[in-house]
Amino acid sequence: MTKTELAEIYRGYIACLNSQDWTNLGQFVGDDAVHNGRRLGLSGYVAMLERDFDEIPDLYFKVLMLLGDPPYIACRLGFDCRPKAKFLGLDVNGRRRVAFSENVIYEFRDGKIVEVWSVIDKAAIESQLAGSN
Amino acid sequence: MTKTELAEIYRGYIACLNSQDWTNLGQFVGDDAVHNGRRLGLSGYVAMLERDFDEIPDLYFKVLMLLGDPPYIACRLGFDCRPKAKFLGLDVNGRRRVAFSENVIYEFRDGKIVEVWSVIDKAAIESQLAGSN
Repeated sequence: MTKTELAEIYRGYIACLNSQDWTNLGQFVGDDAVHNGRRLGLSGYVAMLERDFDEIPDLYFKVLMLLGDPPYIACRLGFDCRPKAKFLGLDVNGRRRVAFSENVIYEFRDGKIVEVWSVIDKAAIESQLAGSN
Repeated sequence: MTKTELAEIYRGYIACLNSQDWTNLGQFVGDDAVHNGRRLGLSGYVAMLERDFDEIPDLYFKVLMLLGDPPYIACRLGFDCRPKAKFLGLDVNGRRRVAFSENVIYEFRDGKIVEVWSVIDKAAIESQLAGSN
């Protein structure tokens, strides 16, 4: 698969997340998908995303940078949202918007995500919460 | 520049960091380098790294994953070290080793790093510190 094809699939995945179209997530995520070392499978992956949207009703995935090196994609995602309670163990409680990034690498097989290595910039959120006190 | 050439330069950069060879860092880092939105320049970049090694005497950069999509490199770095005092605002104080990852994207121009977007997995460190209490 070419870099361009893989990037196109990835953008389809992001559109699927942003429309919360869980019935079609299986087009993009493998049955045995692993996320940060945990074997979630497709159902666990959906459950993780449903929880994310429950905790952050206005969650939106914005692609800031996208690198393709098949079978891998690396992406810098940007978020600007208002978690309604705790987020990453931090008491946001809907009191303010937080903007932060996630740098994430995906491995694809047969056009589907099989493993994800994600790091969220928690320090950036802490810094914003500290500034709002 | 090909992906392979860029990856080779990047591995040279990592070797330069691990040998703390600051006099040669200018071979890999541009004079106006930007790190997480801050224009450090080469001298500020060296100062940042010197501070890192001062805070973490056994710091070692291990390349876990490396993606090339010229002029960009994405890397997952692994660390297993013993910060001697505070690290990322956390009181590690040399009381234990911490293992964590960094997902980082670099933009190169003329074979040198001009911009870096880095996210360190602070939550992983917090979780290890919580477990050691």
